[in-house]
Amino acid sequence: GCGERMGVPTPKQFCLVLERPLISYALQALESVHWIEDVVVAVTRENTEAMEAIIQRYQHKRVSLVESGVTRHRSIFNGLRALAEDGPDTKLSKPEVVIIHDAVRPFVEEDVLLKVVIAAKEHGAAGAIRPLVSTVISPSADGCLDHSLERARYKASEMPQAFLFDVIYKAYQQCSDYDLDFGTECLQLALQYCQTKAKLVEGSPDLWKVTYKRDLYAAEAVIKERISQQICIVKDVKEDGEHVGLLEEMLKNEFKHADVTSKALGPAAGDLPRVTLERCCSFVCVNVMNSDFHETQKLLKLLEDSHLSIFYPLVVISVHFLAYNSVSFGEKMEDLRQIRELAKEVKKRNILLYGLLICYPQEELKLQQRVGQGAAIIAALIKERNPSLAGQLLVA
Amino acid sequence: GCGERMGVPTPKQFCLVLERPLISYALQALESVHWIEDVVVAVTRENTEAMEAIIQRYQHKRVSLVESGVTRHRSIFNGLRALAEDGPDTKLSKPEVVIIHDAVRPFVEEDVLLKVVIAAKEHGAAGAIRPLVSTVISPSADGCLDHSLERARYKASEMPQAFLFDVIYKAYQQCSDYDLDFGTECLQLALQYCQTKAKLVEGSPDLWKVTYKRDLYAAEAVIKERISQQICIVKDVKEDGEHVGLLEEMLKNEFKHADVTSKALGPAAGDLPRVTLERCCSFVCVNVMNSDFHETQKLLKLLEDSHLSIFYPLVVISVHFLAYNSVSFGEKMEDLRQIRELAKEVKKRNILLYGLLICYPQEELKLQQRVGQGAAIIAALIKERNPSLAGQLLVA
Ligand SMILES: [Mg+2]
Ligand SMILES: [Mg+2]
Repeated sequence: GCGERMGVPTPKQFCLVLERPLISYALQALESVHWIEDVVVAVTRENTEAMEAIIQRYQHKRVSLVESGVTRHRSIFNGLRALAEDGPDTKLSKPEVVIIHDAVRPFVEEDVLLKVVIAAKEHGAAGAIRPLVSTVISPSADGCLDHSLERARYKASEMPQAFLFDVIYKAYQQCSDYDLDFGTECLQLALQYCQTKAKLVEGSPDLWKVTYKRDLYAAEAVIKERISQQICIVKDVKEDGEHVGLLEEMLKNEFKHADVTSKALGPAAGDLPRVTLERCCSFVCVNVMNSDFHETQKLLKLLEDSHLSIFYPLVVISVHFLAYNSVSFGEKMEDLRQIRELAKEVKKRNILLYGLLICYPQEELKLQQRVGQGAAIIAALIKERNPSLAGQLLVA
Repeated sequence: GCGERMGVPTPKQFCLVLERPLISYALQALESVHWIEDVVVAVTRENTEAMEAIIQRYQHKRVSLVESGVTRHRSIFNGLRALAEDGPDTKLSKPEVVIIHDAVRPFVEEDVLLKVVIAAKEHGAAGAIRPLVSTVISPSADGCLDHSLERARYKASEMPQAFLFDVIYKAYQQCSDYDLDFGTECLQLALQYCQTKAKLVEGSPDLWKVTYKRDLYAAEAVIKERISQQICIVKDVKEDGEHVGLLEEMLKNEFKHADVTSKALGPAAGDLPRVTLERCCSFVCVNVMNSDFHETQKLLKLLEDSHLSIFYPLVVISVHFLAYNSVSFGEKMEDLRQIRELAKEVKKRNILLYGLLICYPQEELKLQQRVGQGAAIIAALIKERNPSLAGQLLVA
């Protein structure tokens, strides 16, 4: 089993990305790994309430809080103590291996966690590394270059790191106050105080530490990209004309690297598969025959049961068609206007509902163009996930 | 005067950010500094044509191309040679100071360029530095930790760097093939071969090197933020009712850190100030009385003369109002539908035109809410600058 703790809480880890605090993404990543038994978060006294609210709101499991110290190392030491002391008042017990991670590295995956844990079991300590992006130099006291390091011979030490609990706990118990106040590297403590040479494991670029404002932008874009990897087209069993087929084809073209599937919905076809509700954040609901939102509402009802909307804003696009020889554009827009109220309602459950009207032209040739434009609009809505545009009725 | 060259061309510098190659942003930043005389770009033979097309399309000035070498240092050496050899066939002449910069650092500003140049004049060499984000470690041959460096004692060496031309040229002439093939640090060459200790200058975080895909996301977000810093509300001189005033107030609320100004347009008021056309990328055109686009077209005509649309997609939002007691929603939507064709036309000139209809409710109380919603939609459109949604008519 593995305990787990977070770095020093800074405002950064409470920054909202897609309206959710950054730390919640890291917790989600850790709790999705079934063999991690406990997660210990070091948090300042003034942030404890905020942290508890986050745990409750996003239903995080297996998380215990300890008070953070004034430095990173002191916070980690507090986390280790909580795991070491098996008092009757705590549900924590001493693990064989402990992982150390930062709250501001939201994209840690099971793969690299497993690698550092296995390496820690063999070597006593292990940590993720990355190639250096910039050359590292040593300044002299007068602010001039003293010497530069050969870039290829050094690495950036990243997170996660893993340790045999006894190794890292002993290191923290034995290290000096100077280490605790000015040190930055846990692997170094294990080396210095336990003669444990950490195994270095190549990590992915996604392990980077969210440090600057631009990193928050990057994190948001990465998350948006990830939750747009799976698109589910929902249609009534009765509808399967060329309209839906063409749109599906065009959507596959827009989302070349995503998984676009289509599901029939209805009494005969049953509900959406459980796996779709557990993984898919982007839905396109196609309505050919009617101007109402019955189909869309059926889908929205199903999504109520999806826990995914706790974590991410789900997108639902209700697609309608207008043939050149049917009612006028103005009338159709009036008919569909109720989407506004519907969108307002489901926004409370973190679902972003948009409408799309595809106007069929008289000429067959322009049909492809129109549907292609519709697919481009759908792609834009899914990729951007803009809450201010929810309830809008777009036209292709 | 300062010559200037770019690092080794990699695909990254040709990556599109807001549909413009990354390198064009760096060139734009450099040519906006009037005291930089020449910019020398090292480019591979196979990328020369692409580079020439970029220079022409974005009207870059003072740029010369040299063939890049197989390594970064060899490319820089080629750039320096072009500046050194004053043949009759070249418009380049030897500068006193040369700046070395990377094409993948688009946000370099005059401030830091000036600092490194002044420091180079005094010390012979100077370079921008940043604090290390991660601890740097040295691996042993078996992939384990050998030792870690004390983070506070080291810095990341970034760009730009500046040198007395004679210093850095001599360094490149004297250094070994090993240096040219495996070295990464120009400051180190100046130190080793000319005993010149470079002055280190603290740079801003925006100097970072666009390396990973997430950096492209971050760069795009930074650029979008920058070009949304100035919002110009355009209205007819005849219109200045409470409608416009309320919207203006709400927009200022949405763009707390941006400069929101309003200009009257018309025969009496004259055109937009030159400074607005030279700096503003975001326009809100307010139409209270009419359902047409005369006002908007007047603005679009003025923007034709703006060179800014060569560099950035301009956003124009044509705002209309619908009173509860006037024509129906459907009719109004029909009336405004021509925006579609207009948007298609101006998109060719890199202008993204959107429509916004604000429906006035019967109750005064809800008015604020509606206009506030309109302002939120305007903010979303300006911040996202999504080309797929151009021509859409949104409703608040
Ligand atoms: Mg315990
Ligand atoms: Mg010359």
